[in-house]
Amino acid sequence: MKINADRLRNNLESLGKIGADPDGRGVNRFAYSEENDEGVAFVTKLMEAAGMTVELDPIGNLIGTKKGRSDRILLLGSHIDTVPHAGIFDGCLGVLAAVEAMTVLKEEGVELDHTVKVVAWAEEEGNEVVGLIGSGSFTGEMTDLSELNKQKLAKFGLGVPDMLASRCTYLDKIDASLELHIEQGGVLDTEGVSIGVVSGIFGNHRYLTTIYGESNHAGSTPMRLRDDAMVKAAHLICELDEYARKIDPQMVYTTGWLNAKPGANNIIAGEVTMMVECRGMNRECLWAIKDYINNKFEKDEVHIEDTFIHPEVHFSKLCSEIIAESAEELGLSHLEICSGAGHDSECLAHVIENSGMIFVPSVGGKSHCPEEWTEWKDCANGANVLLKSLLKLDKKFSSIDSI
Amino acid sequence: MKINADRLRNNLESLGKIGADPDGRGVNRFAYSEENDEGVAFVTKLMEAAGMTVELDPIGNLIGTKKGRSDRILLLGSHIDTVPHAGIFDGCLGVLAAVEAMTVLKEEGVELDHTVKVVAWAEEEGNEVVGLIGSGSFTGEMTDLSELNKQKLAKFGLGVPDMLASRCTYLDKIDASLELHIEQGGVLDTEGVSIGVVSGIFGNHRYLTTIYGESNHAGSTPMRLRDDAMVKAAHLICELDEYARKIDPQMVYTTGWLNAKPGANNIIAGEVTMMVECRGMNRECLWAIKDYINNKFEKDEVHIEDTFIHPEVHFSKLCSEIIAESAEELGLSHLEICSGAGHDSECLAHVIENSGMIFVPSVGGKSHCPEEWTEWKDCANGANVLLKSLLKLDKKFSSIDSI
Repeated sequence: MKINADRLRNNLESLGKIGADPDGRGVNRFAYSEENDEGVAFVTKLMEAAGMTVELDPIGNLIGTKKGRSDRILLLGSHIDTVPHAGIFDGCLGVLAAVEAMTVLKEEGVELDHTVKVVAWAEEEGNEVVGLIGSGSFTGEMTDLSELNKQKLAKFGLGVPDMLASRCTYLDKIDASLELHIEQGGVLDTEGVSIGVVSGIFGNHRYLTTIYGESNHAGSTPMRLRDDAMVKAAHLICELDEYARKIDPQMVYTTGWLNAKPGANNIIAGEVTMMVECRGMNRECLWAIKDYINNKFEKDEVHIEDTFIHPEVHFSKLCSEIIAESAEELGLSHLEICSGAGHDSECLAHVIENSGMIFVPSVGGKSHCPEEWTEWKDCANGANVLLKSLLKLDKKFSSIDSI
Repeated sequence: MKINADRLRNNLESLGKIGADPDGRGVNRFAYSEENDEGVAFVTKLMEAAGMTVELDPIGNLIGTKKGRSDRILLLGSHIDTVPHAGIFDGCLGVLAAVEAMTVLKEEGVELDHTVKVVAWAEEEGNEVVGLIGSGSFTGEMTDLSELNKQKLAKFGLGVPDMLASRCTYLDKIDASLELHIEQGGVLDTEGVSIGVVSGIFGNHRYLTTIYGESNHAGSTPMRLRDDAMVKAAHLICELDEYARKIDPQMVYTTGWLNAKPGANNIIAGEVTMMVECRGMNRECLWAIKDYINNKFEKDEVHIEDTFIHPEVHFSKLCSEIIAESAEELGLSHLEICSGAGHDSECLAHVIENSGMIFVPSVGGKSHCPEEWTEWKDCANGANVLLKSLLKLDKKFSSIDSI
């Protein structure tokens, strides 16, 4: 039993036209927008065609349900909201492949033991309010918002009560959760591997770092009398780039922006503020980056603020094994991989013991841009692994429960 | 014969109150402002008290003239316009010390062979239109403006015809020009030297440098697959800082600002634009900085735009000798020094063979800020060197002319 690759492609292309930038610069389908509503309507129709009953929960999660023989549940899904000028695969592939799997099961007359729920999680990207608000409300880990985010959410007529009302009442019935997603990195593409078996999601630490020097005239201050915050920041960036590679080859370090004050051509920077972001599975190594900065400078030379400390997530071994087996049986090469990007599945993994993710290659590792691309055969491969894994999970947990 | 140190101090303090920031954050006396008009009126009165006839030329240069026995001319001066939140010494010291010297000569009944002109040059700082517009118009090297600068100048009811009308008609009569100024750097202060004999003004090259990498997801792109423009820029800054020191110990290199694109916490910089400014007396070394950047990167990895190429200026050996002699006779320590900052005297040096500058220490090397400070005794020392040098120049050129 295989998914219908042409139908999956058609659906991806159709959804990708909803919110398409008129100048061809990707897709703008932000959470809670009219375009998102249109996307929800599109997916609703597909879910209904697959024999599912569909509901939109208060916070905007679109949940399609196909009753099985038992009330035990398997959860599939991803998201359909986008970043600005996005590609057409991020999130959408996971939702549409899950719907496609359910469509094939209906066509083939296969009834599962499990009830299957396919979800398009609301506002994964955090473009409008805050990321993962849909899945975070569902799992119950997100129960409040900052004042700023409350105001943002209120613009859409929503509030914290809607988040609370979206909390899942049947978590104990969910045996497993699976999400298919594009890798958004270049590992699978570079290695020429078809399927990524995702073992976890990187922890993410952001240290807002300010380095102090002495602002002075760029012409009249000799090099030997300078305390140039820009030069100190540049040395830090070079050293962190080397240090991160050394202490944990899997870890990533990024300074995506830097702001020098006063910021003039002819004035030595007296202060440089920059974001030091590091991600990896080893949280000791993430904290070591902060230690490195503190150790490099005198106390009054640096200020570090932890603006975001997000722990790593480990997916279940069972899910990984089932995904790998499925790929193997389909004759697809596979590789254990960690996700450097955040996903709805990290919320799910906090409350559902058996959670897992499947990755397919992103061409050139590009994502969150109009150039984001995944080959159609890879979309189909991922959807087939999802379908096969679903069947295996259904069997696995069915045999446990029915004896 | 010495200047009156108390009177000089009083005048500096009085002028420093004109345009003083109400919150105590320095002085705001921008060219062509009401505060500047007030400053011009204040200096006019002092000039008149020193027996000078005063005129304001069309572009705003305030010129006080004290007729001598001959029509040969010696030129003194500096400026009284300020940057935002300026100190009270930058420019003002040079103008008020020159007026003080003329006041003492009047008091002592000393008549010089030369006619002396003391000038407060308009808009040295370039805060309102463009720097050195007063001295540049006077010497005739500034005869036109960009459209933008024309618009800026028009706000004050002025135009290019005013610049042209301010051109000096008696350049051939000027035997020498002297400017006393605070150092604005920390060399004299650090070395504990009283007088800087300025041998030249640094050339200034600005290379607007853009470094290209590949923008990508900061979480999902492994370190080995990155082409991070920020890391490349950081290495460049570290290397230029080292290279500049190595090839010319006198030269200075500064990157005062840096802008990464897209500039997000979680996106690897695909592009970094930064200003590479270098100044020094050796123009080959200034160009070597550009060569270094070009050699470090592949052609499509970097783009360099020369936004400002300003050649170095050498002051006359005669002036330096006379300034050093004067300091020596006054028992003041002195040091040959170059100016890293630009001054009106660089325009004057282009057309007046014997041009020179005298520096006095800036405490902590600070300038262009409310903390700018020069000790009162150093102000007096500088003014005395100026007076003595004026007398020596008068004698020097008088003897040449009168035989």
